[in-house]
Amino acid sequence: MELTPAAEIESRIYKFQQKLVEQAVDGALILVLSDLFYFTGTMQNSYLFIPANGQPVLMVKKSLTRGRQESPLTNIVAIKNPKQIPEILSAYGYDSLANIGLELDVMPYNIYKSYQKIFPNAQFQDCSAAIKEVRAVKSAYEIKLMRGALAVIDQAFQTVPAYLREGMTELELAALFEAELRKRGYAGPCMMRAFAQDFFFGTVCTGASGFYPNFFDGPVGGQGPSAAQPAGAGWKKINRNEVVYIDYTAIVNGYTGDQTRIFCIGELSPKLVKAYEDALFIEAEIVKSIKPGTPAEEPYLLAVKLAAEMGYKDHFMGYKEDQVKFVGHGIGIELDEWPVLAKGIKQPIMPGMTFALEPKFVFPEGAIGTENSFVMTEAGPQYLSITPQVITYVK
Amino acid sequence: MELTPAAEIESRIYKFQQKLVEQAVDGALILVLSDLFYFTGTMQNSYLFIPANGQPVLMVKKSLTRGRQESPLTNIVAIKNPKQIPEILSAYGYDSLANIGLELDVMPYNIYKSYQKIFPNAQFQDCSAAIKEVRAVKSAYEIKLMRGALAVIDQAFQTVPAYLREGMTELELAALFEAELRKRGYAGPCMMRAFAQDFFFGTVCTGASGFYPNFFDGPVGGQGPSAAQPAGAGWKKINRNEVVYIDYTAIVNGYTGDQTRIFCIGELSPKLVKAYEDALFIEAEIVKSIKPGTPAEEPYLLAVKLAAEMGYKDHFMGYKEDQVKFVGHGIGIELDEWPVLAKGIKQPIMPGMTFALEPKFVFPEGAIGTENSFVMTEAGPQYLSITPQVITYVK
Repeated sequence: MELTPAAEIESRIYKFQQKLVEQAVDGALILVLSDLFYFTGTMQNSYLFIPANGQPVLMVKKSLTRGRQESPLTNIVAIKNPKQIPEILSAYGYDSLANIGLELDVMPYNIYKSYQKIFPNAQFQDCSAAIKEVRAVKSAYEIKLMRGALAVIDQAFQTVPAYLREGMTELELAALFEAELRKRGYAGPCMMRAFAQDFFFGTVCTGASGFYPNFFDGPVGGQGPSAAQPAGAGWKKINRNEVVYIDYTAIVNGYTGDQTRIFCIGELSPKLVKAYEDALFIEAEIVKSIKPGTPAEEPYLLAVKLAAEMGYKDHFMGYKEDQVKFVGHGIGIELDEWPVLAKGIKQPIMPGMTFALEPKFVFPEGAIGTENSFVMTEAGPQYLSITPQVITYVK
Repeated sequence: MELTPAAEIESRIYKFQQKLVEQAVDGALILVLSDLFYFTGTMQNSYLFIPANGQPVLMVKKSLTRGRQESPLTNIVAIKNPKQIPEILSAYGYDSLANIGLELDVMPYNIYKSYQKIFPNAQFQDCSAAIKEVRAVKSAYEIKLMRGALAVIDQAFQTVPAYLREGMTELELAALFEAELRKRGYAGPCMMRAFAQDFFFGTVCTGASGFYPNFFDGPVGGQGPSAAQPAGAGWKKINRNEVVYIDYTAIVNGYTGDQTRIFCIGELSPKLVKAYEDALFIEAEIVKSIKPGTPAEEPYLLAVKLAAEMGYKDHFMGYKEDQVKFVGHGIGIELDEWPVLAKGIKQPIMPGMTFALEPKFVFPEGAIGTENSFVMTEAGPQYLSITPQVITYVK
């Protein structure tokens, strides 16, 4: 099993500690699974204290055995109840905590209240922005893991022509595609930091399904199997000569790849083929234009301008009132990391930041476009996705 | 597509409104996806106001079209930003809200703070217990949907002998089993209300994997594909004569079935066969002993007593320090609904309540036991699961 190297964990904690010092907190209590994995290398039912200065303490409820096997941290101790946290921290010399950082973007209100009781004399501050900033810049090790996820998604995409057939439902296609991901180590669930934006694997949309309205904050959502979980593949049968749009994640060893490819049984209309090429053009223009330091909204603004010039004003990143205001998003352990390539986001895209770029168009007859995963380097954005960017036709 | 009947929605809202009156709030703002689906029949990016008296108002950000297609509610309106909520509600005559219920068990702290700004003069109260109480008692319609989910999981379990083979990995088996669920409409992700208890499909554990320690608050978790998402099927190859433990959910039309069955290539040891029969005995004793009104902890206490008498003290519901303190859990739209059949829970199990009962044992050579979904009726608990309770041997 892939285990996070000690030097990697040390470097992450060091960077976060610098932010804690800037934020003038004594330390942060980390409870969110993605953050626990990032800072400890294990994802147990546990509480991690990272002091602004000094060694972190990981308190594990279940499983202590596994926490110790997987994490290179030195201080890993048992805990039964979070009420014990002050006493455990005190034993490590952390005993006059006046300002504590918490992940207030995700932590439920009732849990926050329980920590007010556990630390009656402390003030709490949100440390989630500091975490997102640190996590946004990936190390060489993390990029290696993302390449691994993108190799898996490439392998899965290569299998599609073997089973894509007229008359099968979107769900049947999704089932076979997901099985190819799963047997190669896809480890769900896909993690979203946003509230009420549950996400499952990805989306198969064929023909008019790509036009079906959706709750999800993305350009294309799909009908889904029911009103209860209304996204992704649905019951529609796949027809000849319509667009088969597959937008999926691969999560392997904790890191996410995100990619969209287009298939078709038979032939696609010249209009959709043109739209596909135009999406590739927008992607290429973005790749040419952005460099280290480019504000994250610029690729979006450029894409919107190009799309409008090409006549896609009402079709870019969704249709009319359901258009979303971004063209890409940070990816890593979660699907919605920083930077968000969205209107109004000034955060500079710096070397080491990884993101998915997804110029897409939505028409009544279907959704089409592309999506690839990238890392920003000193020389500009570099593709992490390796699958050829062509429409794959099946007979 | 299955749509929730209007009478069903009206009845749910009426029951919740009675609780809002008891709780002396003016109304509740509902933001959690599972609750939105329960009270509206749709699961859009939206805000639902349920007044203590009067008609609810569903404010939809994305997609309004879909919200109106799927929900039988009368008042469904567009919204762009939650800041507009007071003004929209005011137009419906809800304009002097002093006490508002929120789902404070799930709502992130930062979102709570944003509602304090939106309603600067209101007091907020937690209405999540009221929601859980209402949702715990299922209607005939909901039980019909749960039977549908359990029919799907039964069909999937029937397919296992067709592909379970020596030398395949747990992930390969999981991939094929999940594909059988998905093509029949499995609509993930599986929803957990608990914080930091992410869950994906279910668990395939073979042999010693069933003994592998786990973060999840369940008796058996599995190694998982990586330290990052450390639960469910892993890379272990499946051997002859070892226990193949499959514990999965099926989520169809929004409702969850939960079931465990045991398979084996070759023969199981007499010790494990005996343990399986003992798990069935504990289940049968619980089914005999509980009736409407039985406190939810009683089945757990009975199971612990029986397990100890049979010599399984350190093996029941996990091994030693990782033993969990329940023998079952409510199920419905979420996997962790009320009632929880756990130590210290006095909530009476009432007619209409649905739950999974899962007496299980964990040994170094593997996990074994059973799990079925039930509904409490006036005459006692009734099986909703239909798959025969036998160990299935494959050559």
